[in-house]
Amino acid sequence: MDAIQASEATYPHPKPNPLALFKYSKRVLLKTLLMQEDGGLGCVGERIVIGGWVKSSREEKVELPNAAPSVADEQKGSAGQEDVSCVEILQTRIPLFRSLIKVFGGVTYIARPRLEAPPASPKPLPSIAYLQVSDGSCVSSLQVVVDSSLASPSQLLPTGTCILVEGVLKQPMIPGKHAVELKADKILHIGTVEQSSYVFSKKRLPLDMLRSCMHFRPRTTTVGSVMKVRSSLTFATHTFFQNNGFLNVQVPIITSTDSDGSREKFLITAISSSSYQEDPKLSKDRDNISLHFVKAAAKEKNALIEELKRTESNKEALAAAIQDLKNTNELALQLEAREKSKAGASMKADAIKSSQNPFIEKTYLTVSGRLHLESYASALGNVYSFGPRFCATRLESPKLLPEMWMTETEIAFSELQDAMNCADDFFKFLCKWVLDNCVDDMRFVCKRIDKASIDRLSSAASKPLAKVTYTEAVETLKKVDKMEVKAEWGFALTTEHISYLADEIYKGPVIIYNYPRDLKPFYVRLNDDGKTAAAFDLIVPKVGKLMSGSQSELRLDRLTKRIKELELPREQYEWYLDIKRHGAVNTSGFSFNFDLMLLFATGLTDVKDVIPFPRGLTKANN
Amino acid sequence: MDAIQASEATYPHPKPNPLALFKYSKRVLLKTLLMQEDGGLGCVGERIVIGGWVKSSREEKVELPNAAPSVADEQKGSAGQEDVSCVEILQTRIPLFRSLIKVFGGVTYIARPRLEAPPASPKPLPSIAYLQVSDGSCVSSLQVVVDSSLASPSQLLPTGTCILVEGVLKQPMIPGKHAVELKADKILHIGTVEQSSYVFSKKRLPLDMLRSCMHFRPRTTTVGSVMKVRSSLTFATHTFFQNNGFLNVQVPIITSTDSDGSREKFLITAISSSSYQEDPKLSKDRDNISLHFVKAAAKEKNALIEELKRTESNKEALAAAIQDLKNTNELALQLEAREKSKAGASMKADAIKSSQNPFIEKTYLTVSGRLHLESYASALGNVYSFGPRFCATRLESPKLLPEMWMTETEIAFSELQDAMNCADDFFKFLCKWVLDNCVDDMRFVCKRIDKASIDRLSSAASKPLAKVTYTEAVETLKKVDKMEVKAEWGFALTTEHISYLADEIYKGPVIIYNYPRDLKPFYVRLNDDGKTAAAFDLIVPKVGKLMSGSQSELRLDRLTKRIKELELPREQYEWYLDIKRHGAVNTSGFSFNFDLMLLFATGLTDVKDVIPFPRGLTKANN
Repeated sequence: MDAIQASEATYPHPKPNPLALFKYSKRVLLKTLLMQEDGGLGCVGERIVIGGWVKSSREEKVELPNAAPSVADEQKGSAGQEDVSCVEILQTRIPLFRSLIKVFGGVTYIARPRLEAPPASPKPLPSIAYLQVSDGSCVSSLQVVVDSSLASPSQLLPTGTCILVEGVLKQPMIPGKHAVELKADKILHIGTVEQSSYVFSKKRLPLDMLRSCMHFRPRTTTVGSVMKVRSSLTFATHTFFQNNGFLNVQVPIITSTDSDGSREKFLITAISSSSYQEDPKLSKDRDNISLHFVKAAAKEKNALIEELKRTESNKEALAAAIQDLKNTNELALQLEAREKSKAGASMKADAIKSSQNPFIEKTYLTVSGRLHLESYASALGNVYSFGPRFCATRLESPKLLPEMWMTETEIAFSELQDAMNCADDFFKFLCKWVLDNCVDDMRFVCKRIDKASIDRLSSAASKPLAKVTYTEAVETLKKVDKMEVKAEWGFALTTEHISYLADEIYKGPVIIYNYPRDLKPFYVRLNDDGKTAAAFDLIVPKVGKLMSGSQSELRLDRLTKRIKELELPREQYEWYLDIKRHGAVNTSGFSFNFDLMLLFATGLTDVKDVIPFPRGLTKANN
Repeated sequence: MDAIQASEATYPHPKPNPLALFKYSKRVLLKTLLMQEDGGLGCVGERIVIGGWVKSSREEKVELPNAAPSVADEQKGSAGQEDVSCVEILQTRIPLFRSLIKVFGGVTYIARPRLEAPPASPKPLPSIAYLQVSDGSCVSSLQVVVDSSLASPSQLLPTGTCILVEGVLKQPMIPGKHAVELKADKILHIGTVEQSSYVFSKKRLPLDMLRSCMHFRPRTTTVGSVMKVRSSLTFATHTFFQNNGFLNVQVPIITSTDSDGSREKFLITAISSSSYQEDPKLSKDRDNISLHFVKAAAKEKNALIEELKRTESNKEALAAAIQDLKNTNELALQLEAREKSKAGASMKADAIKSSQNPFIEKTYLTVSGRLHLESYASALGNVYSFGPRFCATRLESPKLLPEMWMTETEIAFSELQDAMNCADDFFKFLCKWVLDNCVDDMRFVCKRIDKASIDRLSSAASKPLAKVTYTEAVETLKKVDKMEVKAEWGFALTTEHISYLADEIYKGPVIIYNYPRDLKPFYVRLNDDGKTAAAFDLIVPKVGKLMSGSQSELRLDRLTKRIKELELPREQYEWYLDIKRHGAVNTSGFSFNFDLMLLFATGLTDVKDVIPFPRGLTKANN
């Protein structure tokens, strides 16, 4: 019944064999090897398959001791040549020695033909490729040692090459930072790189440059780690709410209700088959309807038949539709026959019927789901939602994008204080979760992005949350002379104000509550002073506003008055007013900007770097 | 590091005190009382606060034994009058007797003033209201007994009334189906119902009628139970993938990439402040700019300042913007002063600047996230996504809506068989999860919607999943004479075909794989026979197609050829082709229609009944 019991009862907390195969791809994830306490040393001698991408590499020629090594690894820079021990060379060259090693070391070597014939001339010298391979499952990479008799080094060495290899784990001949390396004896797949056009062929790129090649940026360790923290926080979000007795409710993305009365929205229009066909690029062969389109038409007719059957009202239409489908199928069969005989027939299929916009009223992408959640809270008690919210902003901001993910919640029979308590617990839970579950990635984040990340999370997770009214906050800020814009009661706090409160005064997260009512949406409860509303924001260092919450106005007369004052289109809100007319309950809740939480956790400053496919980039390749 | 360890390490699996308050609303959730093994009998004598909505009710007059009871409960129909024992009457009437009861029963009674004065005339007779109250946390409701001295029965009795009451748990005087009832002694909140317009005032409504009042339908036990199963399955989805080493990745909703080459999409247009103002309803007072709009303008200017600061390039512009904001604030202060003095000034504020569409290229609502997931799988290994997907369909179908939630996954270093195994495991995991975690709600679903629900889930969770090629399926179907449309190789299976396979032949879920390539999207791998593609569908009884999966085409030349053949706009897919150019890996995965899974689990037949706010209804009130 309960999610708390549920999670215990239904999955068995497997303690996997450390080198168990990943269930759905017949390979060992590197984290199961490298994240062991001994770094995998205990697994030396085991035969495994691993897959991943080359992060850096170098090649050692083995026959001419004085030849300069070909350094493919520009990322490692000065790594260069390393001594290769005699045993290492012998192992790869002399069959007899291989047998000896096999007997003494218990390791099997399988000779493999090369995947591709080497270039005809000049014959390349035998060599060994040392590849640092990462599969994204952990920060560390594994050194894979590949003899040139297995695959051409020119294919393997470029950064970004994908390989799937089988081999045996051994201790590196030259002790380094890794406890084990993989001696490959079977190459199962190589995904080569076109070096001339691959973005990582050059050198390490700054994050803002990476934004123009979104489809590759998860291959960097930084973006990989941030995305792992993001995934972990997603699960933490569901875990918190489900374990605390909240129900997940999905709110509509396409909506005709504008929860915030906001003025920048995305309008939705349906485009149909016919309007698609009017695209000149696609309609150029309109008379040469291909087999593919006839089959697509058949598929549509299928669907029409289903609909007619369901409505049951029109037997004749159904019979006609079935006949029509039969004809279309017949046509397709003929067409297929002609195509096979290469007659190149030019045929006309039934025109695909024009469609209508399925929505009568104007519809938009949702700005907030709080009103919808209130409808569910007014029946099921405590609900939350986790999904995308939209704002057609014209401003470029490092904290705001047209599409951002929000966690929203609504609690029945609760008041402002309850929502603030829930916000406090939720925020602390997330901070603690990252510290407990993203150790490897947070260590990397601290090293590469922001030294203070872990301390910031620890402090937020443990210290009591400061709470201050808006009025007190403004009084405090008024005393500060150096502000660019003086704080004034009734006006939104600027980023400078917020940053001063969180970074300088409270030196940590702080809740500001009881805002002037004009700064908050129409549905927020008016306080007894007639001036302020029962709303709060959670502001945090480095980021600013992370959550906005409020208690909803219960009183129908005040709600309708407010809608009128703000000149909002009342007809949009009739259903919402209906909830207040029938069995109304006090609810409170908040909207939590999930993407900004990632900035707080990692110390990154631009939200584009923590969202898998952010919009609003110069070259939008999503 | 690992989600498996994570869930163990970070939340303490609280074993709550059965009558602990719900943390964020100072009330006891009814499930913590009524779902106890003894139905709450062990809690008799405890004082608690509960909140909820009246499902049904009746009133008993206490002074005239022969007076006909006022049956407010039309849902209960024949429930009518019941004897009220003498003790019961005495308790509510005679203070001395109350004290006696208190001494012997250990129960405290607190006399409370009525919330509202009763109507002046005629003076109503004292009575007792028996309310069946539900708070949505479980299927059962609790009987709450309220003396008319506490609150007017006319306020309490209507179905849908919201109450928050304090009282003491006792055994019902007349043994019934419930072990305990609550004797109220303090009414903390009443949310009344306008009976003339409340949809549930009449009688129990069929589900299809409920669709026109979406904001109230979670108040029915049926929709409540379905939504609880839905919430549980949402958590199950994340639990399965996180526990199996997948990372959650959020794919873009607004996208310029059309993953499926589908022809029915939603086009996105940004509407700006200025176009909003052109709405005649809103611009009628354009010259009478209100204080609210000036403050909104100040807020926008704030944001502009932040942007200018960030870009750093233009000190003068920044200084000007700050001055502008100061002026606006000044203006607002003056305006406020005038409003206070009720001068009713008519003022003009700066026109809010017109905005531009932030997107240069045409953008749509995403149809599928598989291509985006592939970009992440080609770096981080195993990824999944859970979110809304869109189809601008013109057909009304009980299985298809413009906006539906999908779970999509992509697995690196994997082939078709791996994705089929994952699909099998995932589907079984969900079936088992529902059986284990939704016992109360599934019992109700079986009783009210579909007797076979639990059996269907049990069978699906335990039986090996049948797998058959498309070619074999067509051969089988060809032998069946009674089909409306004869199965033919190369054509999509009709709903009738699918239903025949799942319901008649395999009598359970079945995977059909290796479809003709023309029936599947361009990115699916072409099999060696040159005719079929490495794709599969999971079809299930009652619902039809629940998942579609495939292995992706790795070979660049075949992909580009296919894009050309299908006349798809290649420039949309350049970034995708890029992944195949640089370190390509075999990936496979699937799209799972989460909403249809709810039909399978509950036996409902229209997807509008399992989605919180479905679109495409006659009266769309979302």
